[in-house]
Amino acid sequence: MANYGPRLVVPIDVKKKPWEQKLPLHNRWHPEIPPVDEVRCGEVFRVEMVDFSGGGITKDYSAEDIKYADPSIVHYLSGPIRVLDVDGVPAKPGDLLAVEICNLGPLPGDEWGYTATFDRENGGGFLTDHFPCATKAIWYFEGIYAYSPHIPGVRFPGLTHPGIVGTAPSMELLNIWNERERQVEENGLQTLKLCEVLHSRPLANLPSTKGCHLGKIQKGTPEWERIAREAARTIPGRENGGNCDIKNLSTGSKIYLPVFVDGANLSTGDMHFSQGDGEVSFCGAIEMSGFLELKCEIIRGGMKEYLTPMGPTPLHVNPIFEIGPVEPRFSEWLVFEGISVDESGRQHYLDASVAYKRAVLNAIDYLSKFGYSKEQMYLLLSCCPCEGRISGIVDSPNAVATLAIPTAIFDQDIRPKTKVPVGPRLVRKPDVLRCTYDGNLPTTKNPAATM
Amino acid sequence: MANYGPRLVVPIDVKKKPWEQKLPLHNRWHPEIPPVDEVRCGEVFRVEMVDFSGGGITKDYSAEDIKYADPSIVHYLSGPIRVLDVDGVPAKPGDLLAVEICNLGPLPGDEWGYTATFDRENGGGFLTDHFPCATKAIWYFEGIYAYSPHIPGVRFPGLTHPGIVGTAPSMELLNIWNERERQVEENGLQTLKLCEVLHSRPLANLPSTKGCHLGKIQKGTPEWERIAREAARTIPGRENGGNCDIKNLSTGSKIYLPVFVDGANLSTGDMHFSQGDGEVSFCGAIEMSGFLELKCEIIRGGMKEYLTPMGPTPLHVNPIFEIGPVEPRFSEWLVFEGISVDESGRQHYLDASVAYKRAVLNAIDYLSKFGYSKEQMYLLLSCCPCEGRISGIVDSPNAVATLAIPTAIFDQDIRPKTKVPVGPRLVRKPDVLRCTYDGNLPTTKNPAATM
Amino acid sequence: MANYGPRLVVPIDVKKKPWEQKLPLHNRWHPEIPPVDEVRCGEVFRVEMVDFSGGGITKDYSAEDIKYADPSIVHYLSGPIRVLDVDGVPAKPGDLLAVEICNLGPLPGDEWGYTATFDRENGGGFLTDHFPCATKAIWYFEGIYAYSPHIPGVRFPGLTHPGIVGTAPSMELLNIWNERERQVEENGLQTLKLCEVLHSRPLANLPSTKGCHLGKIQKGTPEWERIAREAARTIPGRENGGNCDIKNLSTGSKIYLPVFVDGANLSTGDMHFSQGDGEVSFCGAIEMSGFLELKCEIIRGGMKEYLTPMGPTPLHVNPIFEIGPVEPRFSEWLVFEGISVDESGRQHYLDASVAYKRAVLNAIDYLSKFGYSKEQMYLLLSCCPCEGRISGIVDSPNAVATLAIPTAIFDQDIRPKTKVPVGPRLVRKPDVLRCTYDGNLPTTKNPAATM
Amino acid sequence: MANYGPRLVVPIDVKKKPWEQKLPLHNRWHPEIPPVDEVRCGEVFRVEMVDFSGGGITKDYSAEDIKYADPSIVHYLSGPIRVLDVDGVPAKPGDLLAVEICNLGPLPGDEWGYTATFDRENGGGFLTDHFPCATKAIWYFEGIYAYSPHIPGVRFPGLTHPGIVGTAPSMELLNIWNERERQVEENGLQTLKLCEVLHSRPLANLPSTKGCHLGKIQKGTPEWERIAREAARTIPGRENGGNCDIKNLSTGSKIYLPVFVDGANLSTGDMHFSQGDGEVSFCGAIEMSGFLELKCEIIRGGMKEYLTPMGPTPLHVNPIFEIGPVEPRFSEWLVFEGISVDESGRQHYLDASVAYKRAVLNAIDYLSKFGYSKEQMYLLLSCCPCEGRISGIVDSPNAVATLAIPTAIFDQDIRPKTKVPVGPRLVRKPDVLRCTYDGNLPTTKNPAATM
Repeated sequence: MANYGPRLVVPIDVKKKPWEQKLPLHNRWHPEIPPVDEVRCGEVFRVEMVDFSGGGITKDYSAEDIKYADPSIVHYLSGPIRVLDVDGVPAKPGDLLAVEICNLGPLPGDEWGYTATFDRENGGGFLTDHFPCATKAIWYFEGIYAYSPHIPGVRFPGLTHPGIVGTAPSMELLNIWNERERQVEENGLQTLKLCEVLHSRPLANLPSTKGCHLGKIQKGTPEWERIAREAARTIPGRENGGNCDIKNLSTGSKIYLPVFVDGANLSTGDMHFSQGDGEVSFCGAIEMSGFLELKCEIIRGGMKEYLTPMGPTPLHVNPIFEIGPVEPRFSEWLVFEGISVDESGRQHYLDASVAYKRAVLNAIDYLSKFGYSKEQMYLLLSCCPCEGRISGIVDSPNAVATLAIPTAIFDQDIRPKTKVPVGPRLVRKPDVLRCTYDGNLPTTKNPAATM
Repeated sequence: MANYGPRLVVPIDVKKKPWEQKLPLHNRWHPEIPPVDEVRCGEVFRVEMVDFSGGGITKDYSAEDIKYADPSIVHYLSGPIRVLDVDGVPAKPGDLLAVEICNLGPLPGDEWGYTATFDRENGGGFLTDHFPCATKAIWYFEGIYAYSPHIPGVRFPGLTHPGIVGTAPSMELLNIWNERERQVEENGLQTLKLCEVLHSRPLANLPSTKGCHLGKIQKGTPEWERIAREAARTIPGRENGGNCDIKNLSTGSKIYLPVFVDGANLSTGDMHFSQGDGEVSFCGAIEMSGFLELKCEIIRGGMKEYLTPMGPTPLHVNPIFEIGPVEPRFSEWLVFEGISVDESGRQHYLDASVAYKRAVLNAIDYLSKFGYSKEQMYLLLSCCPCEGRISGIVDSPNAVATLAIPTAIFDQDIRPKTKVPVGPRLVRKPDVLRCTYDGNLPTTKNPAATM
Repeated sequence: MANYGPRLVVPIDVKKKPWEQKLPLHNRWHPEIPPVDEVRCGEVFRVEMVDFSGGGITKDYSAEDIKYADPSIVHYLSGPIRVLDVDGVPAKPGDLLAVEICNLGPLPGDEWGYTATFDRENGGGFLTDHFPCATKAIWYFEGIYAYSPHIPGVRFPGLTHPGIVGTAPSMELLNIWNERERQVEENGLQTLKLCEVLHSRPLANLPSTKGCHLGKIQKGTPEWERIAREAARTIPGRENGGNCDIKNLSTGSKIYLPVFVDGANLSTGDMHFSQGDGEVSFCGAIEMSGFLELKCEIIRGGMKEYLTPMGPTPLHVNPIFEIGPVEPRFSEWLVFEGISVDESGRQHYLDASVAYKRAVLNAIDYLSKFGYSKEQMYLLLSCCPCEGRISGIVDSPNAVATLAIPTAIFDQDIRPKTKVPVGPRLVRKPDVLRCTYDGNLPTTKNPAATM
Repeated sequence: MANYGPRLVVPIDVKKKPWEQKLPLHNRWHPEIPPVDEVRCGEVFRVEMVDFSGGGITKDYSAEDIKYADPSIVHYLSGPIRVLDVDGVPAKPGDLLAVEICNLGPLPGDEWGYTATFDRENGGGFLTDHFPCATKAIWYFEGIYAYSPHIPGVRFPGLTHPGIVGTAPSMELLNIWNERERQVEENGLQTLKLCEVLHSRPLANLPSTKGCHLGKIQKGTPEWERIAREAARTIPGRENGGNCDIKNLSTGSKIYLPVFVDGANLSTGDMHFSQGDGEVSFCGAIEMSGFLELKCEIIRGGMKEYLTPMGPTPLHVNPIFEIGPVEPRFSEWLVFEGISVDESGRQHYLDASVAYKRAVLNAIDYLSKFGYSKEQMYLLLSCCPCEGRISGIVDSPNAVATLAIPTAIFDQDIRPKTKVPVGPRLVRKPDVLRCTYDGNLPTTKNPAATM
């Protein structure tokens, strides 16, 4: 008779702090972070995860925890897990690691999450120049559905997925990362035209010993000090996968990750009950603790066979993903368009980021006419299953980006009406939780907007 | 008894030149181009269209016509059509024009199309620095399906749509366009960081009397000369809709266009049998002649009610779209990721255009391992129903873009295999039609790529 | 350069009578009806068709034509078409004929249809004991959408398909049909328990010279007389396909038909703009004239390879169908259940027909609470894209059948509300066209129903 | 702060016998079975359930437990649960109880199931005259996917649902059931024409004290004796819902149940990891233990508002269901057709049960050509997400039923090939577990089938 049921590899007790868990967590990428366990190809195993903040963001009805959140601690990951083939031989650099997501969800007893945007002085988000305040919404789960008392009138099924899944980098790859990201920060604003319209600080997230957790490596040891100074932050997605934030990476998906170190050293975390394409408010998915049930295969020599490097070294590759047939499907979508002209009316050249920014702003403004605050819609578009598309990227000088929103998530008909309704509008109360912005950076305005 | 069946408003004879059609075509945006006909709200009417090149690109098995294509003549549009309400009162500036696409398709007897990429010296495309040659593939339609002798082993149903649908700009809006696009060209490369990695020439497409068609306005008249010097090119999408290239804008969709001039003056053209998000090869959809069956409604005062300007004036708005339940659906997708690191290994800051470029390059390289040339895959990803997503736009410094390809369009299983197949690969012959590149701009290489 | 565009094989002029068409039509199955043309495998060809009644049912706003319709003339089919392989060798008995539907639709200029139920004395329908009157609704098409002035508040995209597609039977198969159907009529009501609850007259539809059309065979000749006496009626689906009424058999589908005679002799007709599973009102789809664009392949020896006879001879087989990815999809459905207990409260044994009857009656009664007449809903459930399922067929003594209705086809929310709305209900006017029932058969009542 | 997470109302310990559970189970319908707990409208609560056999069918690799299964004990249900509104007032007869399925799945640690068909002498199944032996297949779950060592080469995501969900009948309704089902058994075979072609014994399942469990009512008491003699078996679906076996009743669905007794007394059980329409092999879903997370609303007076009786009393009603947007979707289907002609070639009159039987037999025969045994395919079509449709129910004398199978569940391409492959076929081993048939009823043959 066959074995069945997932083997629990990484257990989490959500009542404990991240550093009190049975198996230690980590929040950096480094080849020397030791595996916490091993799995074999073909076996289904279960990995549990704290939310990205390790409980730092709470279910309190206050946004203070967001305003003063410590960015140095993100993201608490479970793993690394060393992967062996059926004969016990570990994955090798140059292999591809195929990881199937057999199941996932929130942790039993912890069926809630939050969506937030950081203060502009503390990380901000895609629209932080428009919305500089820290805000937060709490979501409760009713099985596969989420609703929030802070964004009333909306309920939707989660397209639940891990924000982060990745393999450990080799030392060579890690050095590439640190070097190229350091250059961004050193060259600074003046060389990065996007910084005039996309605001986030710092420009990059370089290694920092502050807030660093390295799994089984004991804090305070010389080894810890060395690794902590080298280890990459987990915020950006990179060649090893990592923080890809691919919203459709849900049950039934398969991830093909390049292997850079012996055993692959797979880590995951940052569970999202749901996320919109782009995760625009930054802390923008419905963040939660959760579990994954995974099954691995090793494709020997698969990097050479299936991936082509794009860059100076054979390590400049990206993962591949397979999206399966099991996800909520919607049949009607309202689509907002943006072009690469910014709020001041200035033309940008084929810039999809600027175009997407305008599409998101258009959607927020539109939806706010249906009784919502703009902050409610900013958070909603971060976490609901909306699709952000690059529609046209060749028609100089305008890139066209679109944001498609499934109309069924609202309890009212949000489509334009031929006969504009008259009379008082429904106002959706209460609003998101929010703090004041105490910084002195200017807020971007739509000069012609009347509301 | 009700009327039924669409009324033919703009007829096309594909055996005639664009300037020989019964109703004259136009290829510029200007408020003074006179309407060719009127329609009433609620009636279903039919508009026929030449392909964007007006027959300049032929079904010959040669890419010479692409290499030497005249960019000044794009895109030949049908219209403008003046829209009246049921009482005969025209649409007014400030209204929203709702246009439902009741039906569409190729013109009977003309069931073929083409996908191409221009020579780097003649417009190029998203990847022109990698693929500088002019190439072309001819597609034939079998009902809703398309196949190409130049990209064998692929067949897919079309998500057919108009690349261009828009209203006429007012003079004020036209001046805004001309001014902001002129600045792009005047400021030039040095101020536009994207130009280092995204190549297309010219930077913008400013008004030109060369190749200009203005519908009923007679060439050579002083009026024609004046308008031709002012009229905007149709290449970029703008506030009036225009060349949005939204691939899902197919049957059952609804477009909400702002009205800037009396009667709205609706124009359409650039029919696409199918297109991938981004239309990456520029002449990248399956371009064809075709027809639309449309139905209009006027939402009086709808711009103020439903659109919020984003920019210095109340004219800085964008259309809204509704996507309906009638489109080919695929259940399995292979997804390629790109991050905002370019081919030289340089880090860009949250740049979705760079990230998408890398995702497309990754997909081309991957698919070329299945027996295709890279040029075949570049054209295929321009025109097949693939989805280009902005997955993460907040995780400094990397934007994450993804390109999802429906696996069912191939006649082989293109997913990675756990056991890598051995033995000779199938080679897909013949290849796309192509010309030599005679320019002297350098080709971008993936330094580490071995094939 | 390839050929493209469908070749018109069977043209129809809807202004002419069925017997005046350029190529003669037929309304019987017989091996000796001569082909009207030939096609080769791989070529896309176009077949046009009159509606099943050949124009006998008109767009007049009256149900008189339904009440007095002549059942002997159904269904006017286009063909037979002889199918050859690429070398010119015809399909042979024992082959499978694969027919792909590349495209289909109404005939240009004839974009309307009708749904009706016959008088109980003249064919009736699934619920004729409840609804004995002849009724009719006219539908108009707006591209892919249909709406009816006789069933206001409903609009839906068509899942258009041919009701009939079949190959010619061999003489041996024809004899089997005639013999087994004759027995039904001869044995009569007393041996057929379903006749107590399912009402339609006659029990079978045996060959009749009245109303018979045999294509190229001249009426009045001895050959005609002989064949007309033998030729099978087209009403039931049988081993050759025929009147399968499979509502999802739309664009992109493929039909694998057994070949019984040399050349296969393919015939099609009875175009449906849309139909619900079961086509319950009998004349129940949105009946229309139309066209098919088809492509054939011959699978040599395919009957033996892929079909298994079920019955006394190797001819007792059924076609196979492939449903493709191109159809309207709905995300929310309201489902009505029926069990095999009839209106008198009597228990039937695992009878799916009785269970489905109850499910349809339940749906009609429910929907009639939203402002519709029951006759409107009877016709609507015949022609809208609803799904009729056999949910449980083993739980003695009850079969469970379900009828699932996509909620998006209504302009109101038809789901049950937790708070029952108060106040006057919207009444949908006008109603279907109808005639009186002049017969003297009793109407079945739901004894406990109050409305 | 809101409550969140489901409240566990009925816990199950799968290591214990059904009669040892903390809250007693029941396997009959009767108004006097006392509730085991109460829930309020709006709260999400969790109900756990044993498999329908209460562990009688085991995961042993033997079909003996099926052959000698005791039919008197089915189905062990959890509940009844008394439903109150937010003010604590219970549901009343005449109300509608809306039950939303927020979540469901197998019980943690018990991720396996079985599909089986009973011996012909012991309940049989839809095709028991063809397949008289007891057979069994064990399925293991990998998250949302199931695979069976006994049906290799098949894997599919579960459309998991409760086979049974119902309210308690009133005494009046119970009497109606017992009376009408008794008549079936008393009248016997000779009056039930379907019995010649559909075989299952007994004809009905009348009350029996053997194997009876009545929840909190103590066995052996006079009350128990009386109720056990009256209480209805749970096998057929009826007016209270019950064993509806609606395969799409998965997460996100809503069930509207009539209320017949004070408090509604909701019971559920018979969890199915997956089921095909019809559940043809009888023990035909992937049967498992499991859990439901539910949320209730009461629609006061909803029976009168939304349901119309069909039968002699106001109690002759059926539930309504809403199917949500969250289910696995497949884009390609292979469809088998059946007409109402039986294996002997005899014509039946518009009989959907006979037609469906032929469709299922056709599918089994077809699929068995791809290396499977017919018994493997019989079980597979019982439990995979295939759709059984009533396609035509009006074309005398043939009903047309269809069975649509998603092609993606197989690891090989099961569609017909234009070029029939040559060479030895893959044979799928091992086979289903099976016992001998020791009875003496004849097996139905397809006379013309050669394999």
